[in-house]
Amino acid sequence: MEAMQVGLAGLGTVGTGVAKILLEDGAWIERRSGTQIRLKRIADLDLDRDRGISLESVETSTRVEDILEDREIRVMIELMGGIEPARSFVLDAIAAKKHVVTANKALLASHGTEIFQAAEKNGVHVGFEAAVAGGIPIVRSMREGLAADQVHSIVGIINGTANYILSTMAEEEMEFPDCLRQAQEKGFAEADPTLDVEGQDTVHKLAIMIGLAYGVQVHPEEIFTEGIQRVTGMDIRYAADLGYRIKLLAITKMREGELEARVHPTMIPESHLLASVGHVFNAVYATGRHTGPVMFYGKGAGMMPTGSAVVSDLVSLARDMCRGTRNDLPPLGFYGRFPQDVRLRRMEDLTVKYYMRFPVVDRPGVLSTIAGILGEHGISIHSVIQKGRQKAGPVHIIMLTHEARERDVREALEVIDRLEVALDKSLFIRIEDSFDSLHEE
Amino acid sequence: MEAMQVGLAGLGTVGTGVAKILLEDGAWIERRSGTQIRLKRIADLDLDRDRGISLESVETSTRVEDILEDREIRVMIELMGGIEPARSFVLDAIAAKKHVVTANKALLASHGTEIFQAAEKNGVHVGFEAAVAGGIPIVRSMREGLAADQVHSIVGIINGTANYILSTMAEEEMEFPDCLRQAQEKGFAEADPTLDVEGQDTVHKLAIMIGLAYGVQVHPEEIFTEGIQRVTGMDIRYAADLGYRIKLLAITKMREGELEARVHPTMIPESHLLASVGHVFNAVYATGRHTGPVMFYGKGAGMMPTGSAVVSDLVSLARDMCRGTRNDLPPLGFYGRFPQDVRLRRMEDLTVKYYMRFPVVDRPGVLSTIAGILGEHGISIHSVIQKGRQKAGPVHIIMLTHEARERDVREALEVIDRLEVALDKSLFIRIEDSFDSLHEE
Repeated sequence: MEAMQVGLAGLGTVGTGVAKILLEDGAWIERRSGTQIRLKRIADLDLDRDRGISLESVETSTRVEDILEDREIRVMIELMGGIEPARSFVLDAIAAKKHVVTANKALLASHGTEIFQAAEKNGVHVGFEAAVAGGIPIVRSMREGLAADQVHSIVGIINGTANYILSTMAEEEMEFPDCLRQAQEKGFAEADPTLDVEGQDTVHKLAIMIGLAYGVQVHPEEIFTEGIQRVTGMDIRYAADLGYRIKLLAITKMREGELEARVHPTMIPESHLLASVGHVFNAVYATGRHTGPVMFYGKGAGMMPTGSAVVSDLVSLARDMCRGTRNDLPPLGFYGRFPQDVRLRRMEDLTVKYYMRFPVVDRPGVLSTIAGILGEHGISIHSVIQKGRQKAGPVHIIMLTHEARERDVREALEVIDRLEVALDKSLFIRIEDSFDSLHEE
Repeated sequence: MEAMQVGLAGLGTVGTGVAKILLEDGAWIERRSGTQIRLKRIADLDLDRDRGISLESVETSTRVEDILEDREIRVMIELMGGIEPARSFVLDAIAAKKHVVTANKALLASHGTEIFQAAEKNGVHVGFEAAVAGGIPIVRSMREGLAADQVHSIVGIINGTANYILSTMAEEEMEFPDCLRQAQEKGFAEADPTLDVEGQDTVHKLAIMIGLAYGVQVHPEEIFTEGIQRVTGMDIRYAADLGYRIKLLAITKMREGELEARVHPTMIPESHLLASVGHVFNAVYATGRHTGPVMFYGKGAGMMPTGSAVVSDLVSLARDMCRGTRNDLPPLGFYGRFPQDVRLRRMEDLTVKYYMRFPVVDRPGVLSTIAGILGEHGISIHSVIQKGRQKAGPVHIIMLTHEARERDVREALEVIDRLEVALDKSLFIRIEDSFDSLHEE
């Protein structure tokens, strides 16, 4: 059996992990693949930096074209990240009948349809196990393991940086800016943490999971996104008092033919399994029509977990080659027209329970005024906490609502924020506990 | 594309789930498979019982031979259970170049090598996603998702009946016999619960997971097994006081070329994710060299979860047929000689921490006598609980040890049990907390 030759575009953190595994674990990989996987070429703009691995056996260059033009190379591993030039190189590789393995969630979220359709046309495969939740084999689990089932909903913690910050805020009673700085010092957050803390990275991964679950493409811009910057230590403590934890969740549900898709800080019951997913760990909690709830947990990022996920896609390709397969399984595991049409549920129609906090003047009648305004908007209150004033400054009235409509909540809060007694803007956090009933037998 | 015709041997609970999905979800299955999957024949000894599904479109008979002799049938689904005649029918199907999909863990655990080698020789595939942890796609995750990684250890809760009983004993402060009766009444335990409560079912699944992780075959009889019958409410309460939960765990670890494989009630820290896996749910916690810890959670049994897992194997076969594949991926995902040799670690060499309970006479000096005997056997004590006597009867001295050797523990306890002050046999429970360090970042 001839070795499967591969080229690696992008020798950053994950690329280094991939090179390490391919160069150092050759015997294991061959035993798993049925053939050798030979890392023939690496392209990266910076070839001088010491990555702690010997690249003697590999042809290195600064030009991705050297991989594209090498006809012996059957698979291009794209680990450059970002949209361009990654998109063009991926499409060029596919046009040259090379399989592609990528961890590029931003690219797949925004140009998945284009890339998948090109792959189908050229009879090659696009592997992207590493693009969602790093070391957790969620892509295969959804495409193959749950292939016979119909997924009703997915709720995921799929950004390690955001989860680290929220976990640390809770455990060490810190505020967001200090936690972010600590995460950066420890290497859990990047110098520019925007994509992670503002939710965009989570949105990219959610868009890919929506494709895997429903065979539809939703553009990242269509997904409602709210980051974790507004979450305060006070809200985390009130949440804890009420039996909840705050997590940045990616949520999608198929309901009466409409697709819900949103990313925001969310309060979940502390008894739920997802509430125990701490620090940089990721978890995806999916509910299938037949299977019921399943959860997948592990490291969502990092050199070796994500590198291992990339190599698992190479192993699958090598196995297929051994078996003489055409390698044209649809990347999302759906046959027929892709993408299917879908109607997105408008965010203003969302109906969930809400946590609300009102910083107000400590004066008789304020509580009843607020409750009255909520009532006028059809929002019914489940419980209230109002603690005595501690020092100077506002008191905080905390309310948990029954199920209410997002549009009504926004309108009511606008009215309340204009009250003379309002000392600061009110804050609300959506609650997710309806999936819990599925958790019980 | 021609439909893939399949025959189903065994119309019990899981078989009914499979028939339901194939007969009722045809459009979905075709979209996932690229072709129709047609349930052509069902064989079962009892064809009269009403299963709530219409079998009009299916040819039914009481003879599995009718499936074996039907040359249009490409896949036999074996859901008879037990060793014979299931084994013979599976081998006959393979000899007739039919693929086999089975949920029969007892069969694969004891005759896996024979069946897998026959499949390889005949160029057919054996699917068994449903044989381990029902609705959780653990087989694919280990064979494909983690293919590039090397698994160091697996710790699993993979018997729903045992987990239901232990969870209920803890939550409702009940004793084992009452809990078992309740589980039987609720349909969570069979009339003959032996395989579940004595650990054999867990052993079967562990043997299969060992094959998937290491490419070796370990016979079920070689795996140390202890059931949950001896666990008392008192031990569960002491465990809770000490910050632990008691679970029936399947454990395997590769250490210095030796394989550890054991099934027994185990104390795990209540902060560990596995401790939150309650009721009939299953979870598998694996640690990979590169990936670190991953956990897979879901329903391990039941008509629809397990039925869905069976159909996921059919979908994979149908996809392969669409693509013209030879379908001879080694069932465990290892190429080359199978099984590989492995040396099993002897149970007496096991080194873990222990929980011990001594029912003794309430008399001065007893504690020091026991501690002395433990010390003579090289067992060092971490902590002691001795509560005042409540009524007549023994006091219970509880000890947690540092790491100790199983052989020393057994010898020491034999000496202690012969003491005049010993009012009943002592009891010990192994503690598993070393995997916890891997849980943290």
